[in-house]
Amino acid sequence: LLACIAIHSFADDLSSGQKKSEAACALCHGPIGMATLQNAPNLAGQQAIYLQEQLKNYRSGKRQNEVMNLIAKNLTDAEITQLSVWYSAIKVTTEAP
Amino acid sequence: LLACIAIHSFADDLSSGQKKSEAACALCHGPIGMATLQNAPNLAGQQAIYLQEQLKNYRSGKRQNEVMNLIAKNLTDAEITQLSVWYSAIKVTTEAP
Repeated sequence: LLACIAIHSFADDLSSGQKKSEAACALCHGPIGMATLQNAPNLAGQQAIYLQEQLKNYRSGKRQNEVMNLIAKNLTDAEITQLSVWYSAIKVTTEAP
Repeated sequence: LLACIAIHSFADDLSSGQKKSEAACALCHGPIGMATLQNAPNLAGQQAIYLQEQLKNYRSGKRQNEVMNLIAKNLTDAEITQLSVWYSAIKVTTEAP
């Protein structure tokens, strides 16, 4: 039962996170978390804990960026979790130069 | 000639950046820029301009992180360029969840 709840919750967060990301993040960070602007980071495959921390730092103003402070200002903890689940679930493969 | 200088400089920066990254960054960000700690970001494939900006923000203290402020404190502009060239040169492929 606990496993089912966990899976259900993950799937919900993933779906909500993707929807929210399309509305709030994709313009600069791309539809699959690969940045469209040179000074925006790729979010694809970043770990959920890192993403949550950074979004909370933007929300509180500890991390400063004009656009991100504005966007993060009204995010709830639940939305931050959902966005972090979405971006961290994107698989990333690297190839050395 | 200009093209040769540009290529030479890129190869130099890439090589110096990789060496510097092994000494200063790989413990937390991994040998190919994939983080080994949950609250550290993957750097592989991030754009050079973003990386430069963040390293300079850590150096100046605009972006706060105890470890990164200490590490970035003594980086020269040239070293920041080299590290940014190295991490941005790692190719990243994404796969949607």
